[in-house]
Amino acid sequence: MRLVPPSQAELAPQWEISEWLNHDPMTLMDLRGRVVVLHAFQMLCPGCVTHGVPQAQKIHEAFPDVAVVGLHTVFEHHDAMQPLSLRAFLHEFRVRFPVAVDEPGRDGPIPVTMRSFGMRGTPTLILIDREGRIRHHAFGRVDDMLVGSAVATLSSEARRAASEACDDQTCRIQTGSP
Amino acid sequence: MRLVPPSQAELAPQWEISEWLNHDPMTLMDLRGRVVVLHAFQMLCPGCVTHGVPQAQKIHEAFPDVAVVGLHTVFEHHDAMQPLSLRAFLHEFRVRFPVAVDEPGRDGPIPVTMRSFGMRGTPTLILIDREGRIRHHAFGRVDDMLVGSAVATLSSEARRAASEACDDQTCRIQTGSP
Amino acid sequence: MRLVPPSQAELAPQWEISEWLNHDPMTLMDLRGRVVVLHAFQMLCPGCVTHGVPQAQKIHEAFPDVAVVGLHTVFEHHDAMQPLSLRAFLHEFRVRFPVAVDEPGRDGPIPVTMRSFGMRGTPTLILIDREGRIRHHAFGRVDDMLVGSAVATLSSEARRAASEACDDQTCRIQTGSP
Amino acid sequence: MRLVPPSQAELAPQWEISEWLNHDPMTLMDLRGRVVVLHAFQMLCPGCVTHGVPQAQKIHEAFPDVAVVGLHTVFEHHDAMQPLSLRAFLHEFRVRFPVAVDEPGRDGPIPVTMRSFGMRGTPTLILIDREGRIRHHAFGRVDDMLVGSAVATLSSEARRAASEACDDQTCRIQTGSP
Repeated sequence: MRLVPPSQAELAPQWEISEWLNHDPMTLMDLRGRVVVLHAFQMLCPGCVTHGVPQAQKIHEAFPDVAVVGLHTVFEHHDAMQPLSLRAFLHEFRVRFPVAVDEPGRDGPIPVTMRSFGMRGTPTLILIDREGRIRHHAFGRVDDMLVGSAVATLSSEARRAASEACDDQTCRIQTGSP
Repeated sequence: MRLVPPSQAELAPQWEISEWLNHDPMTLMDLRGRVVVLHAFQMLCPGCVTHGVPQAQKIHEAFPDVAVVGLHTVFEHHDAMQPLSLRAFLHEFRVRFPVAVDEPGRDGPIPVTMRSFGMRGTPTLILIDREGRIRHHAFGRVDDMLVGSAVATLSSEARRAASEACDDQTCRIQTGSP
Repeated sequence: MRLVPPSQAELAPQWEISEWLNHDPMTLMDLRGRVVVLHAFQMLCPGCVTHGVPQAQKIHEAFPDVAVVGLHTVFEHHDAMQPLSLRAFLHEFRVRFPVAVDEPGRDGPIPVTMRSFGMRGTPTLILIDREGRIRHHAFGRVDDMLVGSAVATLSSEARRAASEACDDQTCRIQTGSP
Repeated sequence: MRLVPPSQAELAPQWEISEWLNHDPMTLMDLRGRVVVLHAFQMLCPGCVTHGVPQAQKIHEAFPDVAVVGLHTVFEHHDAMQPLSLRAFLHEFRVRFPVAVDEPGRDGPIPVTMRSFGMRGTPTLILIDREGRIRHHAFGRVDDMLVGSAVATLSSEARRAASEACDDQTCRIQTGSP
């Protein structure tokens, strides 16, 4: 599970969300400066329910500084996975991290964010560094040790990069190592 | 996981079903003569999704002569687990055995069959012998080896009862329970 | 996991044992009348240690009437798996059932009983009915539910067959169903 | 699974080894500059065999730059776990990383290195940073995600320490700990 080097990584596109659960609306830009773990799932996808969602919950608990965001990307059985059902799912499966409902596709079953991130299905795990770059994109089951390693590596970068921080408008003077 | 001896076992009550999936409507009386495994679940109950339903599916595959019947007994989040959602769940989780939707309770959240069988929650596994008697009633997780043993024991009884009508020399008229 | 029908099943050969642990010496004939689960293993075989031995221990606990017998069939690394090491292994892994050390081969690495039973390696699970017939012979990993089912089926037969009992010398008159 | 901060971490003592398998003899000083994962085990300890050793092997494969070292610390059943048996164990369980046999205790069953590191039993996982400091010491089962995270964090430190010698403009002389 290699991370894409920062110099070769692309900026994550913005997500388009129709509804937020467990959190107020937020944008990727709001999270700039933090490592973001984007876990795309469907509540009736077996691999998500038995592996992906519990793994995302585990990341949420193990890495308090990392922003874990669930993305409910329904591309089949739309009627069966409406927000009302999703809300019950999150309650029963004790999902505590923020979950965003992907904006339905305008001209087909694939939701907007799923399409703009180029996801192939669910579960998908996307790791975004504090500069907003996609450093890893995995479809399917990913091993816990490798996920732990990748998230920690990005977190270490994050801390190191604090002194180089630029935002959209300005670059601050580097004042010392963290 | 001890089976209740036949002499102490009670007859299973009839179930009340509002809708059948994967099968035409049937009564317990229709199944008399076969061992019945009744698996009560909710599609958003984590213990059901990760353990109970896969175990029921495994029984269904391992014991072709046994009637595995799923009972969808929704006693919470009713709006989130309507038949439309259940149908998608069964499709995605590849549930092949007949599933009956328990009749909603008339004066409370507990469905009719759940109440008449005295179930305490989901998942619940109930083993019914070929004479229609409840021989085991388990709430929660049950070990695969013990389930395999119990179902095989009931199946052997069934076969024994059939063959005991005849011995080497004579055939007795079958008058009921062995 | 189908059982061989009694009419097609062969009698198990006698085992040849150089040493018994957890039990006094016994022959298959001593166990006639009981279902026997023969679990062949090596203490340094990964599939045995992580799956086979714990499964045999589970059978031992779930079926008090069944005779579970471990057979330590060393066909490689003989010096590393002497009885002194085996004894420590049984202690550390809390193996409570009787374990027999297979008699070393006279003209090669394959022990005598392993060869006479036609075993292909370890772990091997052999189910012997109360008449001493081999009803199942499985090399490799076997599912818990199927094992539970097969052992229970043989146990049910055993109880039924009590009235037909013959030993080496005599056949007793059948006095009634159990 | 928190790492001890560098400023509070103690230097690891030297190990005393009677025999090396899978590798030529080496000292901790030889490994200075690399992250070291020291996995203490016994070949007949169930928690080691089913969890600890496979986890160490997984670390070995996931982190090519990290030095995984097995330490065979026998404090019971000494006769059953001699190097000859250990060699067969490593072969059968496909352990590829270097394994050191802890020097037997001079006046008791506890081996020398086990005692000098203050280990409480097996399995024990000790993480040593590139400066030779013990940053984590865990007895018993440790979660894969947390191990992956901790090892990656130490690896990141290592890389940072190396690169921090230079910034954009200058290179400082490296004088020791970062």
